[in-house]
Amino acid sequence: MKKKSLHAINRLHHRAAELTHLNNIMALLQWDQEVMMPSGGAEGRGAQVATLSCIIHQKICDPVLGNLLLEAAESSGKASARDRALVRVMQREHDRNTRMPEKFVAAFARLTSRALPVWVRARKENDFGLFLPLLEQIIAMCREKAGFLGYTDHPYDALLDLYEEGLTTRLLDPLFAGLRDELAPLLQQTASAVEKRDLLADLAPMPRHDQVRFSETLLKEIGYDFNNGRQDVSAHPFTTSLGHRDRRVTNRFRPDSLEFIFSGLHEGGHALYEQNIAAELADSPLDEGVSLGIHESQSRLWENIIGRSRPFWQRYYPLLQEFFPVQFKDVGLDDFVRAINRVEPGMIRVEADEVSYNLHVLVRFELEKELLGGTLEAAELPGLWNDKYKNCLGVRVDSDANGVLQDIHWAHGSFGYFPTYTIGNLAAAQIWQAYRAFDPAWTETLQQGNLEKIRRWLTEKIYRFGGLYPPADLLQRVCGEELDSSHFLAYLKNKPEFCL
Amino acid sequence: MKKKSLHAINRLHHRAAELTHLNNIMALLQWDQEVMMPSGGAEGRGAQVATLSCIIHQKICDPVLGNLLLEAAESSGKASARDRALVRVMQREHDRNTRMPEKFVAAFARLTSRALPVWVRARKENDFGLFLPLLEQIIAMCREKAGFLGYTDHPYDALLDLYEEGLTTRLLDPLFAGLRDELAPLLQQTASAVEKRDLLADLAPMPRHDQVRFSETLLKEIGYDFNNGRQDVSAHPFTTSLGHRDRRVTNRFRPDSLEFIFSGLHEGGHALYEQNIAAELADSPLDEGVSLGIHESQSRLWENIIGRSRPFWQRYYPLLQEFFPVQFKDVGLDDFVRAINRVEPGMIRVEADEVSYNLHVLVRFELEKELLGGTLEAAELPGLWNDKYKNCLGVRVDSDANGVLQDIHWAHGSFGYFPTYTIGNLAAAQIWQAYRAFDPAWTETLQQGNLEKIRRWLTEKIYRFGGLYPPADLLQRVCGEELDSSHFLAYLKNKPEFCL
Repeated sequence: MKKKSLHAINRLHHRAAELTHLNNIMALLQWDQEVMMPSGGAEGRGAQVATLSCIIHQKICDPVLGNLLLEAAESSGKASARDRALVRVMQREHDRNTRMPEKFVAAFARLTSRALPVWVRARKENDFGLFLPLLEQIIAMCREKAGFLGYTDHPYDALLDLYEEGLTTRLLDPLFAGLRDELAPLLQQTASAVEKRDLLADLAPMPRHDQVRFSETLLKEIGYDFNNGRQDVSAHPFTTSLGHRDRRVTNRFRPDSLEFIFSGLHEGGHALYEQNIAAELADSPLDEGVSLGIHESQSRLWENIIGRSRPFWQRYYPLLQEFFPVQFKDVGLDDFVRAINRVEPGMIRVEADEVSYNLHVLVRFELEKELLGGTLEAAELPGLWNDKYKNCLGVRVDSDANGVLQDIHWAHGSFGYFPTYTIGNLAAAQIWQAYRAFDPAWTETLQQGNLEKIRRWLTEKIYRFGGLYPPADLLQRVCGEELDSSHFLAYLKNKPEFCL
Repeated sequence: MKKKSLHAINRLHHRAAELTHLNNIMALLQWDQEVMMPSGGAEGRGAQVATLSCIIHQKICDPVLGNLLLEAAESSGKASARDRALVRVMQREHDRNTRMPEKFVAAFARLTSRALPVWVRARKENDFGLFLPLLEQIIAMCREKAGFLGYTDHPYDALLDLYEEGLTTRLLDPLFAGLRDELAPLLQQTASAVEKRDLLADLAPMPRHDQVRFSETLLKEIGYDFNNGRQDVSAHPFTTSLGHRDRRVTNRFRPDSLEFIFSGLHEGGHALYEQNIAAELADSPLDEGVSLGIHESQSRLWENIIGRSRPFWQRYYPLLQEFFPVQFKDVGLDDFVRAINRVEPGMIRVEADEVSYNLHVLVRFELEKELLGGTLEAAELPGLWNDKYKNCLGVRVDSDANGVLQDIHWAHGSFGYFPTYTIGNLAAAQIWQAYRAFDPAWTETLQQGNLEKIRRWLTEKIYRFGGLYPPADLLQRVCGEELDSSHFLAYLKNKPEFCL
């Protein structure tokens, strides 16, 4: 028995490597499409992606793989942690893919690719009615999908688990309720306390070349390795893995915005995670961040908790002033740090400050849960959306374009994705709390630009493990407790720039 | 029977599309590797290429495809030209791949990937003995490969056919003999007639940015469509197809060399060919240039016949002077045109002028033929190489590094490739002769920069057909005769810059 299972695990490694290579190739097709491809290439690229998707799907659904997984699982008690994780993760992928009929997957892909341009037009023309029929079909198919995937309590759980293994409404309900109770008053307090004038509103144009160089400098400072990656330009910044030692980031550079700094740190955080996964996990599905939530915790840690902190800018503000003297030579450090931490509730999630952000997610969580549960019709969304923005954020939504139509996720069919943003924010603060226990002199560490110390700790505790442990287990190992919003709330309340 | 075959042809189209997508994806993996990939990505990329190669090989060897091809061939009498060509080209690919045992293909790939770094070192250290054992194995395997592929007269024919359908030693022997008789004396005559001083030897450095812009300008002038392609930088310039409307070129930019102009026109010629293939050939193996020789005829036509002609520069020299005033404001047009047409026999093929070039190829053709025929041992190569350079080119080879070790082709295992360069040069002159018959005012056409007229004619006669007709048939259609070296020789003899 043992020998047979050993044989099975070796064959499993071989198949895992093949699938990983094909997924890396898919990532290259998508990276090139966003970053390099000439416009004429679009149709051909779509066909190439479809052909490769089909091959990957066949390979992951292969009944021979199913049998191999069963064989390998038989001896998993004696297997290494890596091999056990490999079986677990591949079983999950195999199940996911085999549970959904191929016809359904193809129909869903056709529907969302039809929906995408309609959503673009609907948002542009501020016409929710245009998008509504497609949204209704997407929701119906998402409910069907949940049925295929299976769940215990709530259909939404089946979709949540796609992005964050083990995540359920049962876990999220109290988390979001707690956030709602605390964040709404905090937002009122903070927004009224901070400076009304936005120092960064009228920045003189910053040359693109200097933005790129400054962004590269910060990436190097946090430890991003340009031998194993590169930074390019795309319409929406993202991070992608084209191989164990090829983790690329993108950014965008607008003449009058500091967004490139925070996008750079955000994508840099994602990339640091993947660049520091242990070499022994290469060529396997464990060679990536374990879940969207934990991934987001790393991007948010570097973007917000470190990247908007005063001690970080004590180190790097002189450099910023050197790069952009016209903009910053007459702005003091304190004014700058207050400016990048300005709190002001608004309509748009992607522009939200740290205090508002999770309230934007909360609105989407509540709506998605009801839509999936069948207790809410898509036609009711705009009214309900605007009510919730009024109640949670104190914001009057001026149009559906700036309201219910603002995000691409639903047109993509990605119901269940939004909550991972909040998981990321909460986990970032909780992990940072653990780091501060390890390094009580963390303020000096940041002031000295000793970011390597932080990166080493994160590598030791999180990065190197890739997908080895389920996300909740990983958090337990790092923090000695399960996900808890209190650290995030304490972080906000104690942040000096919020003047509380 | 008819219905069944119709069904077969439809299924064949489907499989052709799938294989074309996978080949496009392979081209992207290679393009990215040469142009974009960070150094750390090399190992992972190698594994991805191996995985994808294996999938492509399985699909092309699939016995189901073999049966489909038989079924489709049954009704080929009634099929369209496109469908007949599809069956012919896919049958060729299927045969090629099934004739070579998978084990042999893998062993050959391992051998050449082992040989490549050894060749690099041998060339660097000028040590042929280092490369010899591997070269011997490569030659032995190439002879074995010829046996698998099959041939009538000479084992070399099996390899020639890989790169140029239908090419044989029987065709090449008289062609090269004729070239040898004519070119050797012509080279002596020309080299002694042209100016000894090289005007372009000490150019002041040209800013890279201006080189890129000038190169882009020329590409646009010849009709390269940047909506369906892009130009990047790589160590060795190349052209590649990532899809029907995604044909990319690369170039390199050295501060003190005009190489970027001629490389740009060369790759531009390759790309023009592929950008102008008819849309109905998309998603099939017909969506590419028909053979290496015909492809090279298009790159050489734009690089040499057009791109080194006086009327072309009557139009574009003022622009070059405008881009690079320091270098050219005091150089007259005639001096410039003479300089870019300077003839001087040398040791290195890739630096050769138009008169010498085919003599370099001749040396390789004669050696390869004997090596494949088993009448020459690899150990004898250096001596024989140097003798031939003395006799054919009047050049004393100063080292094996600059002699027998100069080209990468043998380390790649690409025996049979070199002759396509000469096919390209000869066909270019022959096709240009046909164009001049169509446009007797071709001098004015060039002087006016009416390159669109030339491109339209080439599209009408050659480009749009992609791989529809075998290369010899295509040439017959365009020129009304088979490949004939007299046009090339007449072109050289009548070229005013060669002062004959």
